[in-house]
Formats: sequence, C-alpha cells, structure tokens
Amino acid sequence: MEIYLIRHGIAAERGTYSQDEERPLTDKGVNKTTLVAKKLAAVGLKFDLILTSPLVRAYQTAEILQQIGLSQKITIFPPLSPNGNIQEWLDSLKGQFSSVNSDYKLAMIGHQPDLGDWAEMLVWGSIREQIIVKKAGVIGIKILDIDRPLGTSQLFLLASPKWLI
Amino acid sequence: MEIYLIRHGIAAERGTYSQDEERPLTDKGVNKTTLVAKKLAAVGLKFDLILTSPLVRAYQTAEILQQIGLSQKITIFPPLSPNGNIQEWLDSLKGQFSSVNSDYKLAMIGHQPDLGDWAEMLVWGSIREQIIVKKAGVIGIKILDIDRPLGTSQLFLLASPKWLI
Repeated sequence: MEIYLIRHGIAAERGTYSQDEERPLTDKGVNKTTLVAKKLAAVGLKFDLILTSPLVRAYQTAEILQQIGLSQKITIFPPLSPNGNIQEWLDSLKGQFSSVNSDYKLAMIGHQPDLGDWAEMLVWGSIREQIIVKKAGVIGIKILDIDRPLGTSQLFLLASPKWLI
Repeated sequence: MEIYLIRHGIAAERGTYSQDEERPLTDKGVNKTTLVAKKLAAVGLKFDLILTSPLVRAYQTAEILQQIGLSQKITIFPPLSPNGNIQEWLDSLKGQFSSVNSDYKLAMIGHQPDLGDWAEMLVWGSIREQIIVKKAGVIGIKILDIDRPLGTSQLFLLASPKWLI
C-alpha cells in the first residue's frame, strides 16, 4: 500500500485562538492546499481513505482534498494528533488493512515534526529529523510489508507545495 | 549549499548502442526532461553550476537544463559516472566550495542507484536503497556542514517527473 503523509495547510498564528486545536486554515492556507490537491488529482491520484488528525487545521485540509475529489471518505483518527505515536497507528492499520491489496492508497493528514519522524521510522528505522516538509507538503511512502513496516518501506515523494503547484 | 541530484532522462534501451555511455535520450526523454526543467525554472530555481556525469544521456540532460536557463555553466565531472564514489566527489566539492556561501545551488546529473545511495549517505549516513526516483527525477538536499556532510544533511525534495510536470 501507499501512504501519503500530508501536512495541514497554513493556519492562523499560534495564540490567536484560546485552544490550539481550533486554529483554522488561513485564506492563503486554503488556497495553497487547494492547489496541491488539484495537482495530486491531475496526476491521477485517488485515495481509498483519508485519515486525519482531529485538529481543525488538519480536518479542513482533509475536507479540501475530499472536495477536489481525491477521496470519498474522511475518518478522524486520533493517533494523528500532534505527538502521536506511530506504533499506535501502525497497530491500528495492521488490524484494518492486513488483507488490503498493494494498490491501496491512504492519505494521513497530520503535523510536523511527527510526519517527518514517521517517514524516517518507516524508511530508515530511526528518527534523525532531517526531512523538511512545509505546510500542505506531501510525503509519499510505499509500505512493502505491513507486518514489518519500520525500516523496510520506500520513499518515493517528498515535496513542499512550491514544487507541486 | 543546496545540491540537486538529478537523474538523466529516459534514454535509448540498453544494448542498442555498442557503448553504454553513448546511449542518447529518446524523444520522450528529451520532452519529459524539458518539462521538468521548465518546472524548476518556474519555481525560481537557478543553479550556480551544473556538474554532470560524462555519459551522453546525462550530458544531454544537463544541456536541456542549461537551455531552459537554469544555469550558465556545465562541467563534466567524472565522479558522477555510474558507480561513482561519493567520497571522491565530496572531497572535490570540499576543496572547491568550502568558502562558498550557503545560498550556493549545485545541480549534479547522474545515475541510479548512485543518486539515491548518495542522498541516503548524506541524510542518514548509510545506504538502504529505499529512495525511489525515476528518470528525470530530482532529489534536493541541503548540506549544512560541508566538512562533515554525511548523516547531517537535510532532504527537502524527492520527486519523479509526474509530480513536477
């Protein structure tokens, strides 16, 4: 299966909302995210499912992807919250997707540095925080072995919005 | 400095030329490489220098980048030949670029699996061959410490042509 770790778009500044999780995308964030989504659609990508962090800025990002036609389904997935644990969501994926065929495409909308850390765990088995991905950027990973994904997966895409739009 | 490891475009099939190094880009290879080059130019990228493997398919790729206006200079650089040694070219870069400012942008046109291997060496310090980059694809790496680049550099771009064009 392929997973697309997608960072939420540009959101209102930290501190402008009483709850961090309520910060919405700015107009610029909506615009850039829409252009990225259109590019992914133009490449021919379709997600079987979008899993998203419950935070407003992530959920809005997922909604934009859905509106552009990238997926019919969005599911809120708490392990994608900031400081989420990769083992938690991998265990959940294993339970749900062990029999899923290798063409399955899953989008996961979340936060930095988690997304970069997880990509490094999947591809190289350890975290060095050397992956740079800006807001609304995309990391594409091919999981070859869902039962033993850490350090065995392949990286085929890393792109901040400017390269895609 | 930033280095852009760029894989040569699609070339004539192996075995169609008596010498492997003489295989040229196909029409499709020229076309896709031109579109990738135009995208890089549209993003605002300019290379201070293009270093290329001496093989025809790599040099032609470098010429296309130059024709699009991405750089004024192309230099043939034998360490970028297939099975090139990263230490050899790093030593050469250190000698030439130690005083180069951090905005310096260098394109290096070469071959797989070398480019992916080198990216992994620079970013994670070891090779796992888990980076996938198709012909005319681009790997963007920020070298933070030219004297100690292995395992300390950052990956900010990995894209096969379909994501860029």
